[in-house]
Amino acid sequence: MAKEFVKDVTAMDEDFAKWYTDVVTKADLIDYSSVRGCMIIRPYGYALWDNIKNALDAKIKETGHENVYMPLFIPESLLQKEKDHVKGFAPEVAWVTHGGEEKLQERLVVRPTSETLFCEHYANIIHSYRDLPKLYNQWANVVRWEKTTRPFLRTLEFLWQEGHTAHATQEEAQEETLRMLNVYAQICEKYLAIPVLKGQKTEKEKFAGAEATYTIETLMHDGKALQSGTSHNFGDGFARAFDIKYLDKEGKQQFVHQTSWGFTTRIIGALIMVHGDNRGLVVPPRIAPTQVMIVPIAQHKEGVLDFAYDLKERLRKVARVEIDASDKKPGWKFNEYEMKGIPIRLEVGPKDIENKQVVLARRDSGEKIFVALDELEEKLPALLEEIQNDLYNKALNHREENTFTVQTLDAFKSQLENKQGFIKAMWCGDQACEDKIKEETSATSRCIPFDQEQVSHTCICCGKSADKMVVWAKAY
Amino acid sequence: MAKEFVKDVTAMDEDFAKWYTDVVTKADLIDYSSVRGCMIIRPYGYALWDNIKNALDAKIKETGHENVYMPLFIPESLLQKEKDHVKGFAPEVAWVTHGGEEKLQERLVVRPTSETLFCEHYANIIHSYRDLPKLYNQWANVVRWEKTTRPFLRTLEFLWQEGHTAHATQEEAQEETLRMLNVYAQICEKYLAIPVLKGQKTEKEKFAGAEATYTIETLMHDGKALQSGTSHNFGDGFARAFDIKYLDKEGKQQFVHQTSWGFTTRIIGALIMVHGDNRGLVVPPRIAPTQVMIVPIAQHKEGVLDFAYDLKERLRKVARVEIDASDKKPGWKFNEYEMKGIPIRLEVGPKDIENKQVVLARRDSGEKIFVALDELEEKLPALLEEIQNDLYNKALNHREENTFTVQTLDAFKSQLENKQGFIKAMWCGDQACEDKIKEETSATSRCIPFDQEQVSHTCICCGKSADKMVVWAKAY
Ligand SMILES: [Zn+2]
Ligand SMILES: [Zn+2]
Repeated sequence: MAKEFVKDVTAMDEDFAKWYTDVVTKADLIDYSSVRGCMIIRPYGYALWDNIKNALDAKIKETGHENVYMPLFIPESLLQKEKDHVKGFAPEVAWVTHGGEEKLQERLVVRPTSETLFCEHYANIIHSYRDLPKLYNQWANVVRWEKTTRPFLRTLEFLWQEGHTAHATQEEAQEETLRMLNVYAQICEKYLAIPVLKGQKTEKEKFAGAEATYTIETLMHDGKALQSGTSHNFGDGFARAFDIKYLDKEGKQQFVHQTSWGFTTRIIGALIMVHGDNRGLVVPPRIAPTQVMIVPIAQHKEGVLDFAYDLKERLRKVARVEIDASDKKPGWKFNEYEMKGIPIRLEVGPKDIENKQVVLARRDSGEKIFVALDELEEKLPALLEEIQNDLYNKALNHREENTFTVQTLDAFKSQLENKQGFIKAMWCGDQACEDKIKEETSATSRCIPFDQEQVSHTCICCGKSADKMVVWAKAY
Repeated sequence: MAKEFVKDVTAMDEDFAKWYTDVVTKADLIDYSSVRGCMIIRPYGYALWDNIKNALDAKIKETGHENVYMPLFIPESLLQKEKDHVKGFAPEVAWVTHGGEEKLQERLVVRPTSETLFCEHYANIIHSYRDLPKLYNQWANVVRWEKTTRPFLRTLEFLWQEGHTAHATQEEAQEETLRMLNVYAQICEKYLAIPVLKGQKTEKEKFAGAEATYTIETLMHDGKALQSGTSHNFGDGFARAFDIKYLDKEGKQQFVHQTSWGFTTRIIGALIMVHGDNRGLVVPPRIAPTQVMIVPIAQHKEGVLDFAYDLKERLRKVARVEIDASDKKPGWKFNEYEMKGIPIRLEVGPKDIENKQVVLARRDSGEKIFVALDELEEKLPALLEEIQNDLYNKALNHREENTFTVQTLDAFKSQLENKQGFIKAMWCGDQACEDKIKEETSATSRCIPFDQEQVSHTCICCGKSADKMVVWAKAY
């Protein structure tokens, strides 16, 4: 195959960061612009996000939530109402100081998240227990003034949904917090084929203003972790700061209990780094904008193109099928759609037509399968399901092979020097130990998993007795 | 019906502006926030927008466009590249001057529109005639620093889609410009039941940086006009400013020809002011989040609620049906869903069950119709269609009755003093006349309609010979 047809990608093992950048640009997911730290999400990247968004939006609605839209700006005084929250976000926000030719009397923040706006609105519309629960969500862009950025993983602006709910009781708020964490886990596991580790964040790592933060953590191909979705229980902290009260059935004023939860375009980074390989992206069938790409072989020969187009029309009923009938060489097309991670390539040429068959090439394994024409409607969806499951199992195996248990801080360090991954270790609960472990290893506590194991009896840092197993990792 | 159940709305004829504000708030479309000029779009308002958006997005995709996402910010230097464009927008933008604790070296504009970003991207990805056309669209929020604001009609931040395309020739760009204007017209007429007037903007009223701007203008209940969608042909003006060139088939460098077109949340203001009445909103069935609201009568009586729920399940297959089985009184429910403009109320009580019938009450006409239970699947969709058509025809009649032809400037003025509406009048083409007419009447030129009539032979302002008929109106 002529060199000019190949979009070169740095090998993963050679330079993982470079491989990542190559893939996001060469698979046409993003482009850079002259705005520092912001990316242009190109049609293929946006189609991926749209599919993820549609799957998640359906689940958000199924669980009783309604979509709303809040303003982009937050007045400085509003942001300052909840003191932990402002402390967490003020250092990393963009400030609007002028409107038109005029200097503003009060600066506005470009929303980094919208708790304060939802709280102000809730204080306005919640009066009685009959108004509860309020289960709102918004799809929006947010801005955080990051120093170093990488496409999808950390950008000044990103797209996300943020759910914000208000409940009569703390129990209901806690139920909601975990319900939505589980929704995120389902999206990752069932649609994105990415296994998740569920657990609670430590005090140090929790959200600014939250009582408790829960997270799903995923493991990338290079052994680094990615926080892939978080859900927060606010207790009544924001309600007290914003005076959100309701009259209960007994006629007594009560503060509401709140939650928030968010899922972002960052997940596309996870998708790339969990499933991708040296030939580019690998997209799980369920969220693939195109599931099957038909590449006609010897398409100048009579009847081939007509046959291929007819096939496309037939198969559109069972899968998202496209055809590339351009005059580019098949070799160029093979590379292009491998780079884009399209799950199945369907090749059909004069010989296949004669033999009443086509060739299906799996993107994930490279396997080529001959399928009789009249079996396609049955075999194609089955193969897509198989690929979906295989991708999940491969990712799960990778995570299991790269999850390590350590009993000492020395073992922790040498493990990370040898091979990165999830590190299970006991912790006494003292933040001083957490700080020290981070300082000495550069790994951060990812979460205290719901599924606890007593991997030893003492804190790997201070040696005191410990009953919490924490999973640690270097993280994106 | 007890007074306490009624959400009072100011009568339209008494104070149309107050009526509008009452409806947007009491139909739960929006709430205000502490951010000046920005609104909170509440669940019902957002559901309306979502339906409009889905209908338009489908047509945008059908016509071959792809969705992308561009950054929220535009560096000042980028905005300045096209001189008419920056002159038009610089006075009304929000400026970001600080990121975190730091003052930025270059100020950033919060996008008022994204031509400059698309141009920069196009310069980067268009090289050959094979790369054309590029047919991109984005759904996004934009900010314009307006002095006076009104919900939906004019807000600091609004939601919209902006299409941006690049073509090999001026002819193709012109075709695209008109194609998308027609798509907007279809959305208005077929989905929103709002008749549109299509035409070209004068030089004075065209978009900053455009060669030609086309518009759809709609007439509100009070006789004022609302610009409801615009489509611009840029020629190669932006291409020259941003150096967007391609190699044509003969190997020569050519500038591309571009278009842009936008449709915004402002259309919800049109929906309110075209169809609404003194009892609140009237929503056309095709974009109604709920088309039929079931209100059980005497629901405490045995069997009524079960019957109503069964009916809902049955009818969900033919319409978007909801049920209000709360313990609020039927009178409260009638008012509430009239205020929200739900096209049909379905009443069912013990007597109806006995008689194997239900009552359908039309929101638009107030008419009540008894329908036999076993005919509902047939009659309900037919009635929704009928309502949709009736709303369109009513709006069309209103527009025709409020479109006036004048031969002199005096007649123009006395018409507007008597009754507002679309004013057809001849114009010589001189901007001085356009300026003077605006100054003396407060009406602006809405467009030069595609359907021209020679309503007289001289300009109503200067008396010179004139061959352009312009439609004028006071406008939102
Ligand atoms: Zn310790
Ligand atoms: Zn004149």
